[in-house]
Amino acid sequence: MPSRLIASYRIRSDAKAIDERARTIAIEQSVEMPVSAVREASILSDIVGQVSSIADRGDGWFDVDIALATSTIGDDAGQLLNMLFGNTSLHEDVILHDVALPDELLARFGGPRHGLQGLRRRARAENRALTCSALKPQGLSADALAELAFALAQGGLDFVKDDHGLADQSYSPFETRVRACAGAVRKAAAITGAPTRYIPSLSGHFGQIERQLGVARDEGIDTVMIAPAIAGVSTLQGLVAAHPDFAFITHPTMSGAARVSPVLFARLFRLFGADGAIFPNHGGRFGYSSQTCGQIASRLREPWGDLQAGVPVPAGGMNVRRVPEMLRFYGKDAMLLIGGALLSAPRENLAAETASFVRAVAEHDYGEKDV
Amino acid sequence: MPSRLIASYRIRSDAKAIDERARTIAIEQSVEMPVSAVREASILSDIVGQVSSIADRGDGWFDVDIALATSTIGDDAGQLLNMLFGNTSLHEDVILHDVALPDELLARFGGPRHGLQGLRRRARAENRALTCSALKPQGLSADALAELAFALAQGGLDFVKDDHGLADQSYSPFETRVRACAGAVRKAAAITGAPTRYIPSLSGHFGQIERQLGVARDEGIDTVMIAPAIAGVSTLQGLVAAHPDFAFITHPTMSGAARVSPVLFARLFRLFGADGAIFPNHGGRFGYSSQTCGQIASRLREPWGDLQAGVPVPAGGMNVRRVPEMLRFYGKDAMLLIGGALLSAPRENLAAETASFVRAVAEHDYGEKDV
Repeated sequence: MPSRLIASYRIRSDAKAIDERARTIAIEQSVEMPVSAVREASILSDIVGQVSSIADRGDGWFDVDIALATSTIGDDAGQLLNMLFGNTSLHEDVILHDVALPDELLARFGGPRHGLQGLRRRARAENRALTCSALKPQGLSADALAELAFALAQGGLDFVKDDHGLADQSYSPFETRVRACAGAVRKAAAITGAPTRYIPSLSGHFGQIERQLGVARDEGIDTVMIAPAIAGVSTLQGLVAAHPDFAFITHPTMSGAARVSPVLFARLFRLFGADGAIFPNHGGRFGYSSQTCGQIASRLREPWGDLQAGVPVPAGGMNVRRVPEMLRFYGKDAMLLIGGALLSAPRENLAAETASFVRAVAEHDYGEKDV
Repeated sequence: MPSRLIASYRIRSDAKAIDERARTIAIEQSVEMPVSAVREASILSDIVGQVSSIADRGDGWFDVDIALATSTIGDDAGQLLNMLFGNTSLHEDVILHDVALPDELLARFGGPRHGLQGLRRRARAENRALTCSALKPQGLSADALAELAFALAQGGLDFVKDDHGLADQSYSPFETRVRACAGAVRKAAAITGAPTRYIPSLSGHFGQIERQLGVARDEGIDTVMIAPAIAGVSTLQGLVAAHPDFAFITHPTMSGAARVSPVLFARLFRLFGADGAIFPNHGGRFGYSSQTCGQIASRLREPWGDLQAGVPVPAGGMNVRRVPEMLRFYGKDAMLLIGGALLSAPRENLAAETASFVRAVAEHDYGEKDV
């Protein structure tokens, strides 16, 4: 009995057509040709996708589970996406909703190499949520970003990350920026005694990112950010495997394909090695519901084979006043990320505002939480 | 006056809210923080996105053009996507519809290195459309795929490509498959006299793909296929720049983000160096309209700065009977790709069926075309 993974789709269809529609997807996501033209018995039995269940959701949509052969994946994260949703992503009436993977595939990808516990060790924080802010706006020089990083780090944050828009632009080239910001954060950490870390944002292809990691390593950096929906999930997977000394935080930019569940994206990023995953918190600049956010947090932290837990990093229009509510919702196994709201403070108050964020997280009563 | 590019969105909104919604997107896709907290005059004038026009489409949707600073892009294709749609992709009420780029950005990316004329030269075909078929199903051994490749190539095709599902699986590892199929196609070409080319499908990250290109080059292969929505557009861009001897054909798998126009995707793939772009033809297995397909073909071929034309490759459930109609629609500056329908022929008839496809393309009267 060859190993299979289960891809779960939601399909808009009428009841008469759903059986045929499900079969068509099972074929598209496996042999991608008329089954009648497949001559090999072993391919018919071991490779062609199999519809394993169809359930009517009652609103014109059906839940359809399709069993796909694990052997079609090989070892590649990109190929997993390709077989899960590749050509079917071109249809407007199908959502990729969830996936169930056999243990061998979990082990092959391996998930976070540091995860929640590794990020906690970096922050020397066992009994509270982690804290993070972001360097922006786009357009500042490396020195100006380093000044901001210094002020934020003086506030005692665990992490200060690049905005995901900072790439390798002429006004703050990657290497200049990373050296300046890393130095500023080291200087502030020496003053505060907190082990604040600077997280640079990586961009480009695998080869370019490897060079960026060289600069980062040279500056003593051990935690970085990557946007897998742009860089490619194979790039994330390859970097995680080749650079086990780094922890990787994912950014969700460009992952808003309307027809892949954001909950699934978070889960896949964990599978491919994300130690923490940023996502838009409910009630901020984005429209995710609290239910969606709760599910994302669960998928990142819940037991999954032997994979380590990843850290949920809710973000996107958050502010210090929301800290108690966010901590009630997510509990201590989370990292809070507040960017623009801190940066809106007058520059001379930035370190103090940041410190009040850090204090709110440190002094929160973690006795109760919602998810 | 700093250089700007224009991102065109469609936004669902009521008329009262559209001005504010457009401004919010202009900020999200540039500085991503409250403008009131941006202190530098040069960033306010040169970096913050500017709403350049808003037009009511009359159906609850608005066309909104936003001018984004070219300097935020740097040289990276991924960063272009990030600034065009990154965080805004997470909103359900916005579609990225089109983009207008300044000549300096066109030149920086460079577009196809071989394009329509380069692929014509490879095929020694000036006055007709190009022909292609695909090796499948998934699950066949390298030797079985090579047998198919031999039969298809005996039919006199210009190109025989891997199915996009063929990656680096245990049943047909990349290197074994590519050497076997390349050899089979060479053998057939020596018999027919046609310069038939085998196009392997690349997968994984930039480093892995560079190794795959090494194998391909060693086999005399000069045309390859890549799926940029999985590999990452920066990977495509980097490969095109580093390996100018190869022509690149893009595959659309995973590019079905409902809220990026497929017409735009084809255009961007050309920008980043695709010599040809596969897309689902109307009336096949996918729901694209003939209008969408016509626009994709236009965007690939129309004059655009100094960029070479790319080749439209309509595919997805095509068959030989549709050849005349497809050629009337697309004209000769296209490559027809028929996979499963040829492979459905009894094995002993495969070369003859393929030859009838090749003949239909060669003997078509190209006097008239629709797009």
